[in-house]
Amino acid sequence: MTITAEILSIGDELVHGALLDTNARWLARVLEEHGAAVARMTVVGDEPAPLQAAMADACARADLVVATGGIGPTLDDRTREVAAAIAGGPLWFDAESWRAIEEYMHARRRPVPASNRTQAMFPPGATVLPNPVGTAPGFRVRLRRAELFALPGVPREMQRMTADQVLPWLAAQSGRQPVAHHCLFVLGPSEALLGERIAAFMHAGREPAVGITASAGLLTIRIVGRAGSAAAATAACEATAAELRPLLDDWCFAEGSGPLHELVGRRLLAAGTTVAFAESCTGGLAAAQLTDLPGISAVFRGGVVAYADAAKTELLGVDPDLIRQHGAVSEPVAAAMALGAARRLQAELAVATTGIAGPGGGSADKPVGTVCFGIARGAASRAYTLRIADLGRAFVRDRAVMEVFAAILRTLAGDGLAR
Amino acid sequence: MTITAEILSIGDELVHGALLDTNARWLARVLEEHGAAVARMTVVGDEPAPLQAAMADACARADLVVATGGIGPTLDDRTREVAAAIAGGPLWFDAESWRAIEEYMHARRRPVPASNRTQAMFPPGATVLPNPVGTAPGFRVRLRRAELFALPGVPREMQRMTADQVLPWLAAQSGRQPVAHHCLFVLGPSEALLGERIAAFMHAGREPAVGITASAGLLTIRIVGRAGSAAAATAACEATAAELRPLLDDWCFAEGSGPLHELVGRRLLAAGTTVAFAESCTGGLAAAQLTDLPGISAVFRGGVVAYADAAKTELLGVDPDLIRQHGAVSEPVAAAMALGAARRLQAELAVATTGIAGPGGGSADKPVGTVCFGIARGAASRAYTLRIADLGRAFVRDRAVMEVFAAILRTLAGDGLAR
Repeated sequence: MTITAEILSIGDELVHGALLDTNARWLARVLEEHGAAVARMTVVGDEPAPLQAAMADACARADLVVATGGIGPTLDDRTREVAAAIAGGPLWFDAESWRAIEEYMHARRRPVPASNRTQAMFPPGATVLPNPVGTAPGFRVRLRRAELFALPGVPREMQRMTADQVLPWLAAQSGRQPVAHHCLFVLGPSEALLGERIAAFMHAGREPAVGITASAGLLTIRIVGRAGSAAAATAACEATAAELRPLLDDWCFAEGSGPLHELVGRRLLAAGTTVAFAESCTGGLAAAQLTDLPGISAVFRGGVVAYADAAKTELLGVDPDLIRQHGAVSEPVAAAMALGAARRLQAELAVATTGIAGPGGGSADKPVGTVCFGIARGAASRAYTLRIADLGRAFVRDRAVMEVFAAILRTLAGDGLAR
Repeated sequence: MTITAEILSIGDELVHGALLDTNARWLARVLEEHGAAVARMTVVGDEPAPLQAAMADACARADLVVATGGIGPTLDDRTREVAAAIAGGPLWFDAESWRAIEEYMHARRRPVPASNRTQAMFPPGATVLPNPVGTAPGFRVRLRRAELFALPGVPREMQRMTADQVLPWLAAQSGRQPVAHHCLFVLGPSEALLGERIAAFMHAGREPAVGITASAGLLTIRIVGRAGSAAAATAACEATAAELRPLLDDWCFAEGSGPLHELVGRRLLAAGTTVAFAESCTGGLAAAQLTDLPGISAVFRGGVVAYADAAKTELLGVDPDLIRQHGAVSEPVAAAMALGAARRLQAELAVATTGIAGPGGGSADKPVGTVCFGIARGAASRAYTLRIADLGRAFVRDRAVMEVFAAILRTLAGDGLAR
């Protein structure tokens, strides 16, 4: 009864691992919010035979297949011809699409290479989908069980055409079951211990579904509800969350529906609390994630990426004697960095990181993974140290950023400066 | 004759789009470097029936299947039981694995929940793969055509076990064809124009394969060579690059085998040029990407994420009158930010960004996408403005970061401060 969907990401650069596919994740989220159930994502290269097999398989299984990539103007773009082969007929030329492509290029004072003509070729039975933000038009066509939407691989074009073309089609189908998400963010227990505590919620087929994801030391309990309306799905998630909360002791430090950095940004905006960062080992990651959120400039004052000692003393006003005495990776320096960032950037709240991300730089006393955090609020400050497991540079940095966000949430929740 | 591989990423959090799968990309890269040809990547959820279908399909097509996820201790981890169903027999309990799990937990002074016992259960015919950096052991088992390796979804554990278990297996196979990559980075032409220029290189089946990827305004020509040895594959890529170069006018501003930020980091380290950033609209992204590279602290001095005007004046010494007169998004301010960053952070080279990433904040005069770049080298500085197409906040930020890296490469290449 539900509308099943599959996502097909096409491109040699994806299947060879040269480029990370972010389209499939975005599409899954949006399709599920609008009532489809995503069952599978497939990444396949540009070679015609395996591409055709993957497309035919997906179209045989699902009601809706969204394909991205392979509809550009160059010879390695083969989505069109492969869809035509499955449909069992030749490509046809659409004069109107060709005119639109010429206009798009002329408006940008760019030459119109003849190779762009291939972008106006479509498989038999296809409906042309205009691309208002790029040259490559997409198309939709009935193939086997599925309605196949072929969209560009460029994220902004794909996103726009999903909104313009795929979602209206989806809205017209019956059997939609919108999905809602709710996350409980947990730091503390092992994954197994948490799983045992909430085991009664985790059996296959439960509605809403409850799962645990471990990433960068953070455990996320994901509740995924599906119902006849978005409101009913949200209510079902909330009811499950209310049952889970009493089981979680003080492990759960945040809840929400989006990623942690968005949650932190929204809390800061709601509280109107200005914030600044002083980042050494996290190298700007906390600032880069927080500034992902539009409008965050209302509360985010800025940050210092204090890699060299000169950055700590010159930009943050850390006393050089403090660094000499305790070392750059120390709680007194972390506290001084946070105080300096709060003062220099005129922020109510500041968080500092200084640590050893590795692979080099560790010692017996301060092994790789040692990270000191400083938190300043007004003139008050405190610092603490985490010994993050030395599981690679990326892990140490990501886990430290999680801690920065957790520290902000704890502070906003009225824990003062306590950890 | 080649070893074909498929990658299977398992987890509801992936198929619902709640978490971005980065494992498949990493695995594709490593497996291809070691001589396998990755033909397909599949993401599927935890529900037993679709998971079993996806796993059986992959094992029927490929010589090697690497599955990640679904082998944790909780009830939504079903890789084991699904592999057993395909193998057609019951799970068996491995006492040695159970002892190792208990030891791992005891060493960390954590309780050992009985649910962890499921992690010591394996499908018939499976070989246990110890996990030296986590609790969940993996396994390998012959299923249909394939050797299936089931690894944890936690990236650090997956990576370690790939190195310990998958690569030695792969090294023992015949028919391996190691892959080499070479990228030419291009800014300037449209994708179609570039594709037409190098069309002779882009037909299906060419060795080495040549493709074009467009991302954040950057065009990347990817050369992928496959040969009997890594050295021969590299030589084949280099030969193709030598044929392509004369066709590219001055469009190509960099070449290398890794992502652009790694290339920039390696060039800076090789030149021994110290560098600093002053980032407004890019919000720390440039610093975060550059500091991804281990050892970069030898040349990266630090950066200022100058969101509020106070950050520009207080931390970078930008004259407040300059901001009042020209606005924060202006070439004089960009140049002053770069000079301030170079001076305060004692860096030979500094790059500044100040712009309007959107969606708000634009005006007729300075629409969303207007970004000013400042470059300082010693006491000299210059600035220029890009009108990046308003294709979303993420696009504007990413394109601006590309420009920061391109500016560094141009400056290092002896273009002085010219754009």
